[in-house]
Order: sequence, then structure tokens, then C-alpha cells
Amino acid sequence: MASPQPSQLDGPAFAHIPAPVKAKLRPFAIDKIQRIYQWMETEIIPREPVMDAQLAAKPWGMPALLRELRARAKEEGLWNLFLPNTFKESPGLTNLEYGCMCELMGRCYWGAMVFNCHAPDTGNCELLAKYCSEEQKEKWLKPLLEGTCGSGYSMTEPSVATSDATNVGIRITKKGDDYVINGRKLYSNCLWNKHLKFYILMGLSDPENPNPWRRHSMLIVPADSPGLTQVRNLTVLGYDWAPEGHGEYTYDNVVIPKENLILGEGRAFEIAQGRLGGGRIHHTMRLLGQAERAVELAIMRCRDPRFKPRGKLIGDFDSNIERVAQMRLELDAMRLVVLNAAETIDLFGPKAGRKAIAQCKVLVPKAIQGIVDECMQIFGGQGVTQHTPLPGIWAYARWARLADGPDSAHRHQVGRDELKKAVEITKRHQEYNRLAKVYGEKHGEKVHMMPEDSL
Amino acid sequence: MASPQPSQLDGPAFAHIPAPVKAKLRPFAIDKIQRIYQWMETEIIPREPVMDAQLAAKPWGMPALLRELRARAKEEGLWNLFLPNTFKESPGLTNLEYGCMCELMGRCYWGAMVFNCHAPDTGNCELLAKYCSEEQKEKWLKPLLEGTCGSGYSMTEPSVATSDATNVGIRITKKGDDYVINGRKLYSNCLWNKHLKFYILMGLSDPENPNPWRRHSMLIVPADSPGLTQVRNLTVLGYDWAPEGHGEYTYDNVVIPKENLILGEGRAFEIAQGRLGGGRIHHTMRLLGQAERAVELAIMRCRDPRFKPRGKLIGDFDSNIERVAQMRLELDAMRLVVLNAAETIDLFGPKAGRKAIAQCKVLVPKAIQGIVDECMQIFGGQGVTQHTPLPGIWAYARWARLADGPDSAHRHQVGRDELKKAVEITKRHQEYNRLAKVYGEKHGEKVHMMPEDSL
Amino acid sequence: MASPQPSQLDGPAFAHIPAPVKAKLRPFAIDKIQRIYQWMETEIIPREPVMDAQLAAKPWGMPALLRELRARAKEEGLWNLFLPNTFKESPGLTNLEYGCMCELMGRCYWGAMVFNCHAPDTGNCELLAKYCSEEQKEKWLKPLLEGTCGSGYSMTEPSVATSDATNVGIRITKKGDDYVINGRKLYSNCLWNKHLKFYILMGLSDPENPNPWRRHSMLIVPADSPGLTQVRNLTVLGYDWAPEGHGEYTYDNVVIPKENLILGEGRAFEIAQGRLGGGRIHHTMRLLGQAERAVELAIMRCRDPRFKPRGKLIGDFDSNIERVAQMRLELDAMRLVVLNAAETIDLFGPKAGRKAIAQCKVLVPKAIQGIVDECMQIFGGQGVTQHTPLPGIWAYARWARLADGPDSAHRHQVGRDELKKAVEITKRHQEYNRLAKVYGEKHGEKVHMMPEDSL
Amino acid sequence: MASPQPSQLDGPAFAHIPAPVKAKLRPFAIDKIQRIYQWMETEIIPREPVMDAQLAAKPWGMPALLRELRARAKEEGLWNLFLPNTFKESPGLTNLEYGCMCELMGRCYWGAMVFNCHAPDTGNCELLAKYCSEEQKEKWLKPLLEGTCGSGYSMTEPSVATSDATNVGIRITKKGDDYVINGRKLYSNCLWNKHLKFYILMGLSDPENPNPWRRHSMLIVPADSPGLTQVRNLTVLGYDWAPEGHGEYTYDNVVIPKENLILGEGRAFEIAQGRLGGGRIHHTMRLLGQAERAVELAIMRCRDPRFKPRGKLIGDFDSNIERVAQMRLELDAMRLVVLNAAETIDLFGPKAGRKAIAQCKVLVPKAIQGIVDECMQIFGGQGVTQHTPLPGIWAYARWARLADGPDSAHRHQVGRDELKKAVEITKRHQEYNRLAKVYGEKHGEKVHMMPEDSL
Repeated sequence: MASPQPSQLDGPAFAHIPAPVKAKLRPFAIDKIQRIYQWMETEIIPREPVMDAQLAAKPWGMPALLRELRARAKEEGLWNLFLPNTFKESPGLTNLEYGCMCELMGRCYWGAMVFNCHAPDTGNCELLAKYCSEEQKEKWLKPLLEGTCGSGYSMTEPSVATSDATNVGIRITKKGDDYVINGRKLYSNCLWNKHLKFYILMGLSDPENPNPWRRHSMLIVPADSPGLTQVRNLTVLGYDWAPEGHGEYTYDNVVIPKENLILGEGRAFEIAQGRLGGGRIHHTMRLLGQAERAVELAIMRCRDPRFKPRGKLIGDFDSNIERVAQMRLELDAMRLVVLNAAETIDLFGPKAGRKAIAQCKVLVPKAIQGIVDECMQIFGGQGVTQHTPLPGIWAYARWARLADGPDSAHRHQVGRDELKKAVEITKRHQEYNRLAKVYGEKHGEKVHMMPEDSL
Repeated sequence: MASPQPSQLDGPAFAHIPAPVKAKLRPFAIDKIQRIYQWMETEIIPREPVMDAQLAAKPWGMPALLRELRARAKEEGLWNLFLPNTFKESPGLTNLEYGCMCELMGRCYWGAMVFNCHAPDTGNCELLAKYCSEEQKEKWLKPLLEGTCGSGYSMTEPSVATSDATNVGIRITKKGDDYVINGRKLYSNCLWNKHLKFYILMGLSDPENPNPWRRHSMLIVPADSPGLTQVRNLTVLGYDWAPEGHGEYTYDNVVIPKENLILGEGRAFEIAQGRLGGGRIHHTMRLLGQAERAVELAIMRCRDPRFKPRGKLIGDFDSNIERVAQMRLELDAMRLVVLNAAETIDLFGPKAGRKAIAQCKVLVPKAIQGIVDECMQIFGGQGVTQHTPLPGIWAYARWARLADGPDSAHRHQVGRDELKKAVEITKRHQEYNRLAKVYGEKHGEKVHMMPEDSL
Repeated sequence: MASPQPSQLDGPAFAHIPAPVKAKLRPFAIDKIQRIYQWMETEIIPREPVMDAQLAAKPWGMPALLRELRARAKEEGLWNLFLPNTFKESPGLTNLEYGCMCELMGRCYWGAMVFNCHAPDTGNCELLAKYCSEEQKEKWLKPLLEGTCGSGYSMTEPSVATSDATNVGIRITKKGDDYVINGRKLYSNCLWNKHLKFYILMGLSDPENPNPWRRHSMLIVPADSPGLTQVRNLTVLGYDWAPEGHGEYTYDNVVIPKENLILGEGRAFEIAQGRLGGGRIHHTMRLLGQAERAVELAIMRCRDPRFKPRGKLIGDFDSNIERVAQMRLELDAMRLVVLNAAETIDLFGPKAGRKAIAQCKVLVPKAIQGIVDECMQIFGGQGVTQHTPLPGIWAYARWARLADGPDSAHRHQVGRDELKKAVEITKRHQEYNRLAKVYGEKHGEKVHMMPEDSL
Repeated sequence: MASPQPSQLDGPAFAHIPAPVKAKLRPFAIDKIQRIYQWMETEIIPREPVMDAQLAAKPWGMPALLRELRARAKEEGLWNLFLPNTFKESPGLTNLEYGCMCELMGRCYWGAMVFNCHAPDTGNCELLAKYCSEEQKEKWLKPLLEGTCGSGYSMTEPSVATSDATNVGIRITKKGDDYVINGRKLYSNCLWNKHLKFYILMGLSDPENPNPWRRHSMLIVPADSPGLTQVRNLTVLGYDWAPEGHGEYTYDNVVIPKENLILGEGRAFEIAQGRLGGGRIHHTMRLLGQAERAVELAIMRCRDPRFKPRGKLIGDFDSNIERVAQMRLELDAMRLVVLNAAETIDLFGPKAGRKAIAQCKVLVPKAIQGIVDECMQIFGGQGVTQHTPLPGIWAYARWARLADGPDSAHRHQVGRDELKKAVEITKRHQEYNRLAKVYGEKHGEKVHMMPEDSL
């Protein structure tokens, strides 16, 4: 057994990082984690009320506050930290290292935006880098990386089950050198925010193709395209989620030049497959940070000397002591799940991480939903009002259970993979049975292997 | 991001090891894991029915089968693998590496016994090595390590809450050069098994000591001590757990020579504290192996062509597909929890691992209890009978929730630790508030930090 | 066994009423249930979108639509149905019969307002009727019953744990013939709604009284009292809950004439005790109606031919079939809990119903929260947006877990009552033991009763 | 509102009966409940240890103790209480009244046997009475009612999914005037118990019949039929369940005279349908009694002055106060579910009670499994040993989740029924939409009904 190391990275920036991960962080990552932590503590979290005030006044747009902070963060080199090292701008962090930072950014709902590390721009950057021509990259990727604009990823539709993407039905038709889009979209980011410059849209371009995986194309849709209208902003669990928002759109003969086609006609699924990687678990990373904020508030309330139901502090009730413990243990377990997925991708690539990613998506938001729900209950009636950030945190966790399709869809995938193992397991079991018979005879016992009558 | 490595240790021995752990295994550990796997598959699991038959015929004793297997395993060097490298016999494995093996051993309930890696002998070895004189080690530790005898750890008592060890009440009184024990004990291992040669017993030797942590002593109690009687074997959830068993004992003037006192009078808590380390999570490691067996059986049943309720395979029902997925995802998460605790101890010692160990104890048995319950349900009526090993696996998981005190005791410890953070959190929050006011003024907004009215 | 009756009240108005309750409904109650159902189906539910539009335009006030509907309902005698028969205006319904109607009203969030059966006016009416002088009743109760004004019940405070009402701290001081109020209140109904004319406020009038249950008084606070300010509307889980709303108030030397004191100084707890009755479970009754709406939508979605993930209707997935069944079974069980509490109050009075009422408060909102959460999941991403009423229904259920103090407070009360039974149980058990010994001797067996060593 | 009645049936025999049920009990039922309660308290429960001793000595057979008690109970007229009033021996109790008694009998696992009210004899009596000829009744029903013999119901099989009864595969072939049975059966009652005289067996007599519901027949199989062998007793969750037991059988050319055919060839499903009624929920009734025993023990332990972890009684921990409350509230809710099903059958017949019965089967055993699990945890390590009856109670609840097929099968049935309502719901919703449009126009609002885009 290795002898304990002198330093365990004891500062508060590292308080929740599991010991084996701590042991693996490289010095420059440690430095970045420390600086992100500091930014969050002194520059970002204490500005939440100002941000709330600015957004209340003008929800759609890049608030002045955010603009300033982004400029400073960029200057300090805390920018695009998520970028894989296939980018020349990449800081060269592993997903594991970035995961530790991403959780810290997540402590404030809009924290990642300060460092240009927010969804869906992160995933969009990867997609554009991987599948676009140099011209396209110059025009669309570059400003994203520079932070001069924002983007959306437009996939979900009303009236069809787009959790199964083969059902995407918005029509893309060729008209001369252009593509014309007609139909409706849900979610993606709010068009009313003028910072947003384009959507990456998946649509149905070749409905008659016998191969259902070749019927769809991806287009870059400029936000100011005539015919594209945002009908309204979608509230999600009662919140408007400004400044990003979620939209409801109609496409009425929206004309897109052919230069905006990504990769080629009918190749949307190929692109979507390639949009795999760390980006798929960034939400769960940030959720950890949100949940830690919630737990901190609950702990603070538990020891607040002003609250004494039946003469005891809230945290003097054994029931609440156990509740806080359960939160801590579950939340730390969820962090292990997230960081394991990140490191699996680091080590063996996103395909090898498929199950670990599904594990994040199915387990983490659900667990955090439960943890934050318990935090609200500890706060009593106040816990569900705007007096605490808890309802908003809860809503983020709840939404995340649907973010890439409902968790049942992920379970189905995992379950089908798992059941394929039946062949190998059965074969192995038959070998147990054969040997059991041999061993039984040797020992003079007529035996059978459990389960009785197994194949 | 590191590029994927050529080998991911693809064999079935490594199928459930998380990618980041795989990447860390040293060649000689890989070799041992592979060999343990092979032993389990071909030597041990297929002998379960023979073992069952031998135990049915003669439950208390070391079955002939086990004796043979132990001799062979020892010869092959698959012996005492759990031993930390403070022992000269240690194979030098980390807790993490051993954890991977321990899970495999756990695939058969008595698998660890084959490799002399079973509880409570593992914990007892560590205790004896750490706190005993050379004479004591020669007499009691050596045969344990050689496997010529077994031992018990005797702590629990009826009629008092020994989950709080200060309540241990069995009386140890000095009489000349000897100690005399009077009282009752529960659990520990079955005295009727003649392989068992001694207990390490905690008792009350100095009840008047003002310091409650100095009132107890630990003695080595030879199994054949006159006055020591096993009243009956305790069934646990209906099972006798032969050949180890759980006993109910009376001590009626049991005389123990002073040479059998460990460390010194009144030092039982000091010793118990030192009985910390990987041993405390071996049960959860083995439970993973048991749970994997359960899940394998459920998967096999799901695809068994003979079972077609309403005309479909059990595994063709989406509900069961989702259930199997949920099992897989939860079980894999529990493995992350166990291996994280093991590695934390490796890196920073058992004290640093305290929370990670509590996490194992609180989360893992409960989750596995649920998983195995679901497996039984998939098997229908047969699933709760001796036609499958499932009820026994369930019982092991259920018991483990009580193995070192009920999980509520661990939650209390964690919860109290967690609530101590309130001071630091509140202070940090006050700083947020101070800064928020500053930033607010700067932006011309009168703002307040959530939660409203916070300290 | 009674032979089945010819009629089971088969219409949709009675679809969810348990058979034993159906058998007990009196003809005039059946008629009222039928009429309420019809109103909900044709007059109220289809007006939800209009109501939403009117509230969006002007949240605080009695919307024109509601005014019209209330006038018509009053004319048709569907008014004040909740009133116990101690009122001359009472329709003479039992709590059980009213419960069936109340669930139907609950199908629309503002349904009960149409029939002047909404909280907190219902509870306030009972309180005023029971404890006020004739002059007070004429001035405050009469308009409430006539529906010309609304009222609030003001209890909760920030910065103290008012779930334990002895902590209520807003100061009431005597000044000449008047009372002066200083402090803050949370919740209660929105002052900005001009329909609201007064609050019933609980405050601290005699802090030095040695008896903590005699320190508080209740006052009727006119809404237009100078010094009473609503700081803001409290959102609850992101919603404003217009037109009722939840407020945050400051009382700055609010002067209340002594005529507005209810019952007498120091008698607030006496009054609060008397505010017991069916009113305490009206929220759970209405929640059943809300939950049925949610389940209906989920069922509709399950069979909506446009949604076919992986080529099947959502309701063709066995997992969803089981989910819908689980919703149905749990929801029906919760209805049994609610109606049992109602009938217990009918038969033996509110004191006898204490445990049944706690059962409603602890079990029902939690179960419905889970059911509606599942409904949202069945809807996918759309399920959490304003495209469905589901997030609002969820929020209502979640809030109800806090409505009269967090459910832990109710559990504590029930748990303490339950543990008092230990004396009787132990005594009974000792008698078992005595008899067991007698019987054992007779049968020649030396036996002991489980649990081993019991008292 | 009815004024509270003078008597609430306050004695301990009525302590758990919901108020509305109390109000409905007829005097002679009240008398019987009181007497059953007394019997349980003084004659039966205190004899559990003697019974355990007798069964340990001789598990298979009618223990002497039970024989005596049965004779006395019969003499006192506490016999066959379950019998519907279609029997001349019927005491004329409703299912609801019997439910109250059945719970009390369930307080001891073998309590119902004392009163000849145990499964499966109760169900078998109903079946024989309904479908057998007078000769058959004289030979098989009469002794069952008199209590001179016992019976089994033989349905489950290994290697096929008999939860779907169309899969029953044991072969019945005609040979001259006889039927010959070949195959295997599981469960049913133990043949080794000589009190058992016959099985009612369902088998496959006409495999080629195009109608799968006409392929099976039911035969009365005498226990001493040559060729019928019990291979072993099935343990269920580690217990042998003596004296009834669960068997594993082989039928090797078992010849049954044609007189033993029930109703006619191919009519097994018709008979099984008719075996509907109160009998299907007797297990859940008894489970309530078992669970009350468990809760009593937990309460007793909570206040046992000898157990003081960390210096407090177990019941002084708020966490345990809440746990006990939760048990009480859930258990009482489950009683409402059971009694509602009983009364529904009373009022409108078993067909109308189908959903209520499924509700019992799905919700009750699962809830009680959880409650008893918590009781074990409160007892700590002792709670899972034979020092308490808790593991046995737990096992009974767990088994009950499978007793008539796994709960998923019941959920499927309910879920499919529920989803059929989609047609009606959709139609109703369309009418909402139509009206909403009308109302919207009237109010000058262009509105739409939620959910957006609904059919």
C-alpha cells in the first residue's frame, strides 16, 4: 500500500474532489481549478443578485455584467476550458480535470457562460470543428470560440417523439442552390437574445430514403433568417431561464444557402454520432455544483440559531442529521459516477464511455432532484419561494432528466445491451453445470447447479 | 486528452472494472485477478452444489471440499491476498487491486475462504499484527495466516445497544493473574465449528473509570475455554450461514490467562480504532460479486426461451429491459463507491477514508438489497425458493446493512461531521453578502443575496 | 353478503368514487356531484385558456371571467358547499359528500373559487363563525359568505420556525383602545388583489406570559390598514399563483381597533385549535382532482398516434403500461386516505380524525408529487413546459407538502402519539410471556416468547 | 354533519379499524371480532413458542397443539368464518366484517388455521361449492369444512411462466375412464403433511384446442395417488413454512378417476375465473395483522430502557420517531386499501372489485415489506435473527408479492384497462377544445387548450 502523500490538496477548491482524482490532477490543472474556484467565490456568486436584477429588467440579451466578466475571464486565460486538445486553442485539460472545474462553474447557474464553457455552445464547437469546412469554421466556429456570439442546437419538435431522432420531421427541401425549411421546433435557445447568431438544425431532407439513418441533414440556420419566428419562450417548470431561454419556433419557408449544409446531405446521424464526448455530461457536472450550493444552504439553515422548532435547532433533530448525511453520501456517489464517465472518455474514447455516460444521465439528475427536494423541505415554506435559489436548482435537475431524451430511453439502450450478454452468460452457466456434474460424481454426490432447471 | 490505449483488459475477468481502475492495475495484480477469476469459474462456482451437499450433511466444521481447495490455492500463491504490505507475507496489493479480486471471490459466498481472505479473520489478522506481542502473534496470528485455524470477533451483545460500543457490558474481572468473563454475546462465529480456535472479545473491565473510552479491554478467548457455551446458532434471515454461522454465547466464569490480554487493560477502544482499514469494506466488495451473480441469473432468465408470459420472453418486456438497465447502472455506481473507498485508503490512509467507508456501508448494501429483490421478482415464485441462490444473496445484503451497526449510526456520524461545516459555510456566505452589496452599489442596484434574511 | 345493487352510479362524475362511498351518497349529494361535474366539464375547464389570458394581462384582482362564473354558480345554488350544517346557509353536506365534489372542483386549479369553496376563505369562515361576535360576523363573515370579498390567514413568518406556532413573533402591542402591529409576515394571500379585504393575523401580544400557549392573539387586519405593505409577491416553485398569490408583508405600526380582536387577548391557540375540521384536508381533496387531470393527459399521450418512439406508441411500451397502472393504484389509494379522513370527521369529530388528517398531509401530496412527476416524464421535454399544465400541478402538490408545516412536523406528532403506546404494548407482551410459560409447562416445553429477552 | 356517536368501539380489538368501518359493523360481527381478538391474545399468540417447539420436533403434520385449539374454536362457533352466505354453514359475515377478523387472526402466522380460515382451503372450499357435483362435495368439501383434512391448490410449474396460466403444461391424458397426469408442479402445500388429503390441480388436457382458454382441466388429486411424489419441500426465503410448506412434485403416470374431474374437460379457466372473491385478498388481510405485530415490537424496542445508543432511548431519536410515524401512516393506508376491496366485493361483486383487488396485491405486500424491513433495522443485528419474528414476517410479505403471479402481472392488467380510457378522455378533451375556442372568441382572446397541439 502506498504511504499517504504529504499533500491532499486541502483547500476548499478541492473539498469535494475524490481522493483518487486529487492524486491525478496535474499542476496546471490544479492551478486552474484554484483560480476558477476563486472567481466563483469572489467574482461570480456574489454577483448573482445583480445578474438577477439585470435579467429581470431585460431578460433577453447578454447582460452587461456578463459581458464584463467574460472579457476579464478571457483576458486571464480562463476561457474555452472545455476544448479538447484537437483544438489549437485547447488548454489541454482532460475531461476529468475539466470535470472538476465544470462542477465549480456550476455553483452559479450562469457561471459557465463567464468562461465560455456553456451548453450548447461547447457541443456545437466540437461539432463544427469536426465536420465543417474551413470556410464554415471561419464564419461560425471562430466567433463562438471568441465569444462574440452564441448558438443553439435545434432538434426537439412538437407532435413527434424526437427522443427517437429518426422521427425528426421538420422538412428541408432543395430549391435551386438553397435549402428551404418548413415546420416547427421546440427548445434550443431563445432567438430573442440578440447574442445568439445561429442554430444547428436537424431536419428531414430525404423522407423516402429506405435507410432511416440517411434521411436527415444538418444545416446552419442564421438567427436572422426571414421566415424564422420565435412564437414564444418556453418556460421550463415555471422559469424562463433567461438569458438563454428555451424557444418555440416556426419555420415558414426559411431559405438557407447551400454553404450552410454540414458535411453533406443525409449525414445528420453521422454528425450526431460524432457529437459524442465530454459535452454530453457537462450538465451533470454542473448539476453537482448546483447541488452543493443547495446542500450548503440546507446545512446553514440547520444551524441557524433563529430557527428553533420545538426548542431545538433544525440540525439538532436526528432526523435532519440523517437527512444531511444521506444527501452528502448520495451526492458524493453521483460525483464518482460523473468523474468516472469523464475519465473513461479520456482513457478509451467516447464509444467506450457509452454506458458510463448513460449512467450519468439516468442516475445523476434523479438523485440530485431528490437531494434538492429534501433541502427545500428543510427550509420549510420559504424553501419553495424566491427567497432561496432551491426551486430553480430543483428545476434544473428535473429538466436534466429530459435533456437528451427521457431517462427511460437511456435505460432502454443500456438494458438491450445488457440482455445481449445472455448468450455468453448462458454458455458460461452451462459450463458450470457440466463441471458441477463432474465434481459431484467425484465427491459421490448427485448435484445440480442453481437455478434449478437452468439451461 | 490522452489517446485511447491499445488494451482495455478486455477479458471477462475485467468486465466490470471501471476503465480508470483498469488503467491503474499493475501487471502482477492483473495476473492475480485473472487467476482468481479462473479459479472462481472452474474450481469454485461449479463446486457450490457439492459444498451445499457437504454442509447439509455436516454444517459445522471445515468441509472436506474446502480443505482441499484451500490447500491448492495456498500452494498456488493465491493466499492471504488481503494482507497489507506491513506483513512480510503480504503480496503487496493495494486495496484497490485487492478490491477487484475480492469482488470476484465474492461471486461464491464461500469463495474468499478458499483464499484465506474471509471475514472476520482478515480483520483479526490486522488487529493481532498491530497490537499483539511477538508471543501472542506466534500463538494466534501465525496459524490464522497459515490457515490452520479460524477466529471470531466478539462484540455484539443482547439487551444493550452495542452499535454504540461504550455500551458493551460483558464483565471482565481480574482474579489473581487471570481474567474472568461473565455475560452473554451474540453473533461472532459459530463455536460448533471446530476449525475456530479463538475469539477476540471486547468486554467491560473497569466500569467505574470516569473516561468511558477507557473502561473496556480486549482478550483472546480460546474456543475451548471452560464455561464458554454456545446456546444456539443464530439464524440470520432464516439461514444458518454454515460453516461460519453466527452464535449466541454465555460466558459463565470463563477464566482467561493474563497472557491473552491485548495491548493493555482499558485499551479496547484504542485497538478498535486501529482495526480500521480495507477490512471494513471487504463485505461490500464481496457483495458486488454476489450481486453480479444475481444479475447474471436475471439476465439468463430474461432470455430463457421456455418462459413466455403473454407470448413474449421476459426480457422482451420493455419494463424488464428498463429494470435490467437500472440494476446495471446502480450496481456499477456502487462499485465506484467501493473502489473509491479502497483507493482513498491506499492513498491517504484509513482516517482520510472515513467518509468514503461510511458511504460504502450506507449505500452499497441497501442498493444491492434492492437489486437482488428485483432479480427475485423477475424469477417469479421460483425466485424466492432454494431453486435459485437469490434469497441467500438477498439475505447477505440485508445483513450487511447491520454488520457494523445499523446504517443510521453511520449516517449520524457523517451528518454530524457535515453539520460542523455550517460555521465555515456561514462565514463564506457572509462574505458573499458583503461583496453582493458592493457589486450591487456599483451597478446601481440595491440587491440581496439568497436566501433572504440569511445570516 | 349483500347482493350487488342495481345502480353503481356509473356516470363519469362518479368514476373515481370508491364503491363503498358511492353506496353512501344521499340523493341530493348525488345531484350536486353531478352538477358540479357538469360545470367543470363545460363551464370551467374549457375556460382555463381564457382565464390564463386574463391573468397574464392582469394578475392581481378578480378576473372578469371568474366574477361572471361565480355569479352564475351562486344563482344555481352551487355556493358555499363546504359549509358545515352549523351555518344556516349550509347545504348540509357531509365532509365525505363534499370531498367528492371538492375533488371535482380541484380538476381546475381555480375551480373551487367559482363555488366560493376556496382556501383560505373556507377555513376563515369557520373560524369567524365559531369565535366572533355578532358584530364581527356581520362585518367580516357575511361578505365572505356572499362572495363580495376575499380574505387571508396570516401565520408564517420569515426568520423563525413558525411551523411551531409558539415561535410566531410579530408584535402586537396595546396602545389605548387599539392594537399596534409591527413585524413581517410571509405567505397568506396577495394584498395586491383588491378583492381581498382582510387578514386573520396571529401575533405575539404577551411575550412574558409564563404559559407559551397564552402569549398570542388573533386580529382581523383590514387590507387597507396604513402601514401594511406587501413587499413583493412570493413565487412558489417559479409560479406567481395569481390571482390569489402569496405575499411578503411588512407591518409598520399598523393600528387595528380593539373591535377586531377575536375572542380575547392571548387566545390565539384556542382559536387555532378550533380551526380544525374538514378544511384542513381540502387541499388534498383538490389535489386528487389535479392529479386526475395529469393522469388523463398522460393516458392521452400514451395513445396519441403521432408519438412513436422506436415505432411504437408510448402506451405500447410495457414499462409505460406498468407506470400508468402504478399511478392509478397509488392515486386511488390516496383517495381512500382522503375520504377516510373526511368520514372520520363526519362520524366522530375532528379530534378523532387527527391521525387520519395527518395521514392525508403526509402521504397524499408526496404520492401525487411522484405521480405527476411520472406524467411529465411520459410527455418528454414538452412535459415540463407551459405546453402542459403538468409543471403547475406538480408545483401545487409540492407546495402542499409544506402547506401546514413540513410533513416532518406531522410525522413527529404521529410518532410521539404512537410511541406512547409502548406502555400498553409492553404490558400486553408481558402477559403473553406469562401465559407462554404456563402453556409451555403444560406441554412440557421450556419456551420463551419472541423477541428474546423482551421486557 | 352527523354528530359524533356515543361509542366508537374503543377496545383494543377495534384499535386499528377505520372509523367509517367501525360505524358499519353489525352487533354480531362486533361480538365475533371481540372474541377472535381475545382468542388471539390469550390462546394463540402466547402459544407461539410451544407451536415453534412442536414444529421443530416434527414439521410435517398437524401439531397436537393446533388440533386442540381447532377443536375448541369449532366448539365455540369460531369456525369457517370466511364462508360466504351461499353456504348453509356461513356465519353470514360480509367480506368487510370478516376482513377485520382476518387481520386479527393474521397476528399469529398460523392463527387462521385455528379457525379453519386458512388459505388455500378457503379458496378451495368456494371452488368446490361452486363447481362440484353433490357427490364430489360430500367427499371433498365436507371434510374440509369440518376440518378433518387439508387441501392444496396446484398451479405453478417450473420451467414455464405459469403467472400466465395458459402456459400451464403438466399433461392430463385420458386413458379409458381415467385421467393420467405426467409432469411437475411447484408450490401448493406439502404432501408430507398427512393432514393434507388432496390437491386441486390445473393441467393441460387438450393442447391442440384452437382456443387457448379451453385447453386446460381441473382435477381433484388424492394425496395418496401412486406416482405422485414430493421431491422436496421448497424453502421460501430460507423458511420451510411448516406445517403447510411449499412442495416440489413429480407426477409420474398418476391415475385419477374421472369422478375427480371438476365441471368438465377444458373448463379450468372457467373455474379459475369463478375462484374470485374475498379469498383473493385474505393474504393481504392477514399481512396487516403480521405487520401490526412487527410495529408493536419496534415500538416496544424504541422505549426499552436497556437500549441507549449514545445515551438516548432508541425512540428518543427524532429519526426513529418519524420512522414509526411513517410506518403507522402507511400501514393504516394499506388497511384502507384492503377493506375498500372487501367492501367493494360485498356491494357490487367480485368483478366490480377487480381493480381494488389488484390494488391490494400490488400495493399492500410491497408497503408491508418496507415497513417490516424498517422494524428490523430498529432492532439492529438482533432484528434479523430468530430472536424476533421479524424476518419471518418480512418473508411472508415478500412472498405475497408473488403469491398470485408477480405484481408486474397485476400492473399490466390494470395498465391496459386504464389505457383503454384514452378514447373517452381524448373525446372529452376535444370537446374542451371546441368549447375553449367558443369561450375564447366570446372574450376576444385567441386561446388554446393545454396540452399544446393535443388531439
